[in-house]
Amino acid sequence: MRRIAAALVHYPVHDRVRAVVTSAITNLDLHDISRSSLTYGLSDLFIVHPVAAQRLLADRVREHWISGSGARRIPDRTPAISLLRAVPTLDDALTELGEGTRLWVTSAKGSGDLLDFPAARAELALDGPPVLIVFGTGWGLGDAITQRADARLSSILGRNEGGYNHLSVRAAAAIIFDRLLSRER
Amino acid sequence: MRRIAAALVHYPVHDRVRAVVTSAITNLDLHDISRSSLTYGLSDLFIVHPVAAQRLLADRVREHWISGSGARRIPDRTPAISLLRAVPTLDDALTELGEGTRLWVTSAKGSGDLLDFPAARAELALDGPPVLIVFGTGWGLGDAITQRADARLSSILGRNEGGYNHLSVRAAAAIIFDRLLSRER
Repeated sequence: MRRIAAALVHYPVHDRVRAVVTSAITNLDLHDISRSSLTYGLSDLFIVHPVAAQRLLADRVREHWISGSGARRIPDRTPAISLLRAVPTLDDALTELGEGTRLWVTSAKGSGDLLDFPAARAELALDGPPVLIVFGTGWGLGDAITQRADARLSSILGRNEGGYNHLSVRAAAAIIFDRLLSRER
Repeated sequence: MRRIAAALVHYPVHDRVRAVVTSAITNLDLHDISRSSLTYGLSDLFIVHPVAAQRLLADRVREHWISGSGARRIPDRTPAISLLRAVPTLDDALTELGEGTRLWVTSAKGSGDLLDFPAARAELALDGPPVLIVFGTGWGLGDAITQRADARLSSILGRNEGGYNHLSVRAAAAIIFDRLLSRER
């Protein structure tokens, strides 16, 4: 199995009128996505944020659950939050994972040439370079990231008659890890 | 397709030493699980809480996103949060769904006679009475609920080498809806 990591991007992302903005860190994103990452065997969860004070916040949350009172109260959180690393840019995450790392992006509204989940799952099962699966906060990843991706994953469509698919990024990440990496499928 | 609903239970649930307790409502549970419910075509999300002040809190969050300023700011939240109903007991949810409703419970640590996901998915695709899929907060559903269930769904195992599967209830609900109800599978 190749090394698989995830990144949660706070800049560049879209706001609801598609302006490119920097979003704030949401505490529960750190917990939920690190727990899902560890459950599905990912090696790292990169929290990408350009603002040093926001990275410090993520680092403090991490420490609280590794060596602070949180770790004593709920020890199950420690191995999950240990996957978390706050970095200024997506390139820092790619550098960390090493040369040749493949960049896969996600979107709720993908169109054009998309990698479907069965094909993506088959590719991850082969040996190969690390894969970084990238999620956007706010209203989704900025084009500067989407355009440089090696692959764009299909969107999750669910089963809503009217096409409603406004999942939280916490829910979308969980579903995508399950589709790509669950043993049971 | 039969009617499928979800319930998020705050009593009776276990705490981390398996005492039976009442948990507090988490705001992001209401949003994440209602958004996942609507995306996967569920009809209702029941928030089960025995404390009137906690049900009032859930009702106020709902109103904020249906007729308050939240609805004007992020209209996408309105149809999702509209699925939400706060009820005192699980029986109120069952009464609402009508006689013959099947009660399916979830657990991170199921053992014994479990309904696996492919079989559950096939059963939901058939015509039949409504199904209520029940999730516990805290450290999982109390035995009083698990014991009366018509079926207990298999646990989500992920792919962690050491067996770590501490998903948030928000992530677990998203994965379970996707396994049972996605179109693409």
